[in-house]
Amino acid sequence: MISEKMKGFVAGSSAIRAMFEEGKRMAAEFGADHVYDFSLGNPNVPAPQAVKDAILDITENEDPVMLHGYMNNSGYEDVRQTIAEHLNKNFHTSFSAKNILMTVGAAGGLNVILKTLLNPGDEVVTISPYFGEYRSYVGNFDGVLVESPADPETFYPDFADLKKKITAKTKAMIINSPNNPTGVIYPESVIVELAQLLSEKESECGHPIYLISDEPYREIAFDGETVPWITGYYADSIVGSSFSKSLSLPGERIGYLVLPDSLDGAEDILAAANVANRILGFVNAPSLMQRVVARCIDVRSDVDFYLKNRDDLYLALIEDGYTVVHPDGAFYMWVKSPEEDERAFVDRLKKDEHILAVQGRSFGCKGWVRIAYCVAHETIEGALPGFQRVAEAYGL
Amino acid sequence: MISEKMKGFVAGSSAIRAMFEEGKRMAAEFGADHVYDFSLGNPNVPAPQAVKDAILDITENEDPVMLHGYMNNSGYEDVRQTIAEHLNKNFHTSFSAKNILMTVGAAGGLNVILKTLLNPGDEVVTISPYFGEYRSYVGNFDGVLVESPADPETFYPDFADLKKKITAKTKAMIINSPNNPTGVIYPESVIVELAQLLSEKESECGHPIYLISDEPYREIAFDGETVPWITGYYADSIVGSSFSKSLSLPGERIGYLVLPDSLDGAEDILAAANVANRILGFVNAPSLMQRVVARCIDVRSDVDFYLKNRDDLYLALIEDGYTVVHPDGAFYMWVKSPEEDERAFVDRLKKDEHILAVQGRSFGCKGWVRIAYCVAHETIEGALPGFQRVAEAYGL
Repeated sequence: MISEKMKGFVAGSSAIRAMFEEGKRMAAEFGADHVYDFSLGNPNVPAPQAVKDAILDITENEDPVMLHGYMNNSGYEDVRQTIAEHLNKNFHTSFSAKNILMTVGAAGGLNVILKTLLNPGDEVVTISPYFGEYRSYVGNFDGVLVESPADPETFYPDFADLKKKITAKTKAMIINSPNNPTGVIYPESVIVELAQLLSEKESECGHPIYLISDEPYREIAFDGETVPWITGYYADSIVGSSFSKSLSLPGERIGYLVLPDSLDGAEDILAAANVANRILGFVNAPSLMQRVVARCIDVRSDVDFYLKNRDDLYLALIEDGYTVVHPDGAFYMWVKSPEEDERAFVDRLKKDEHILAVQGRSFGCKGWVRIAYCVAHETIEGALPGFQRVAEAYGL
Repeated sequence: MISEKMKGFVAGSSAIRAMFEEGKRMAAEFGADHVYDFSLGNPNVPAPQAVKDAILDITENEDPVMLHGYMNNSGYEDVRQTIAEHLNKNFHTSFSAKNILMTVGAAGGLNVILKTLLNPGDEVVTISPYFGEYRSYVGNFDGVLVESPADPETFYPDFADLKKKITAKTKAMIINSPNNPTGVIYPESVIVELAQLLSEKESECGHPIYLISDEPYREIAFDGETVPWITGYYADSIVGSSFSKSLSLPGERIGYLVLPDSLDGAEDILAAANVANRILGFVNAPSLMQRVVARCIDVRSDVDFYLKNRDDLYLALIEDGYTVVHPDGAFYMWVKSPEEDERAFVDRLKKDEHILAVQGRSFGCKGWVRIAYCVAHETIEGALPGFQRVAEAYGL
């Protein structure tokens, strides 16, 4: 009774859903304290006190008709202006309210911009491994996701491969830095090279190739690393942001798109994205939360919590003999499977040690697994002996 | 640079957007007090005090990690159970949490169910006039919206026409009662006849035809009218609800789908709708608001406010000589244009009297206009002399 397309999407969803259900089942059987669930990217740092204060103050003092009412589909003008000025201050840009479109999280924003841009058959290039939802988002609009495998040492783009994958059919490229699932941040040198390649390809193809930077993890960067702001490097750049991680508000569905004036066809894109936000059924980003994030624009969740998790887990896994990509940001660790089929490794972790990780093929990259370390520190402490035993069993 | 499909959507959006911009321009030129804007269905009754109390109490007392975090894509289990029990109490149904999917407003819910059901080319029948967004929502999934004109006297379905429009290609039908734009509520006799017709057509076609009831205005019903609950009449019924109007929370984007066990293919539909909610980029309905509406499930905005507006406007327009459909519910009035082309009538109201109404063709029905009377009572008082002068000018 369901559509053919949805049958594919449902089948594709089953691996992660099965893991989620398995985790619940195991917690019931063995006790939640004896299951180490690293499967989901759900921040476990509470929203900062400033968020709570803002919700209370705004609810107490603002006019409820305005506060909970419809506004322009792109969001409250003053909220958009606040975000534009925040970006201008941090990145020396010159955005105004019209360049900001408030969205139902970064996921909503990606769907809005892909709806705006894609004709059926248009190709969207991304670097694998990648957040598996990109496949669905591109598929929603009958686009074709083209994978360009990352350099297996650095997990930066492999420019030799990328050069071949970007063709006249390419309408857009999606990058994600800090990366889910690898934790890698692309340094400025990578962004410069990418911008140069895309500019060359634009000239070759004679049409724009939009670079969509999906940045929900921008604020979770360690060791003084900074995430280059792409609109300064490439004119046809679009940024998708979210407060899900920076303010620990994933369930509230609040984010924004940045649509610079430098975009080829900026005026049409701005108008169409506004309409896309409406007709996709988002209508507008949740109104109270728009006002809350504007108040908390300079506030951040406690990143040190993730840093401690990263350090303790990374050092232990390296010590055990695992091959691990050192995460610059986000809250994911990308671990090489000690045997070729990473599903067997995932299975062993689960069965022998009650440790839940996600198979790399869910991110378009076999042979690796993702560990989401946005968990209580006790979960990490509890899991370390298990990781060690598995490493020993593999003879690492 | 934007997609071909979006070009059509943007063009189709321009009439209402132009009216909105015109209203802002006129308010600036003539003063907001001298412009009578009946163009938008934005509730102007504040959310009830109970909503404010719930936001404050929940924010103050619930664990922020849980309150603002991800949950199952279908929503918090306890919130869904509360809604199920509320429906069971009111409509003698036997729903449980699994039959309720929390959505980003009714618009989000309609997109989720249409994504779940439609293959390209599938037909979705609706009664014209209808909420113009249905065209976009069905088009999002390459479905075809088929209009069946309402009986021009009652604005109930014209069953003779409907019989012809429902064919083997029909996958679903959307109804909307209380209706936007007519204000009509379908009485039980209409629902019974509709259920019978659809059952016959299902047997004929050999496949299910899903009846999607879009019910954002259910709680705005006047004169003791009740809105029949369709799942009791037809097994393949799906209900889309929203708190936008009942609790005056349109900007918060909170609603739900009811997916009964009686649906042909219920299990697949429930699973696929959950996935559709995620991959369309909604992910989940805003989390704080889920918890707020569960607390306020028996609370309603002050409908008497709309009733007074309806009575004063309706009586005056009838007195002026206009032909008006008597609204049973919602906050729209459907007025016959005194000249064939309703755009000229809309134009005259705007130019001569600064009264903003929406052309019927935006709802798939020429020759009529929609007046959204969810406005301050002073707006109605201020507009009445203008309506009278225009009636006189037409010689009504």
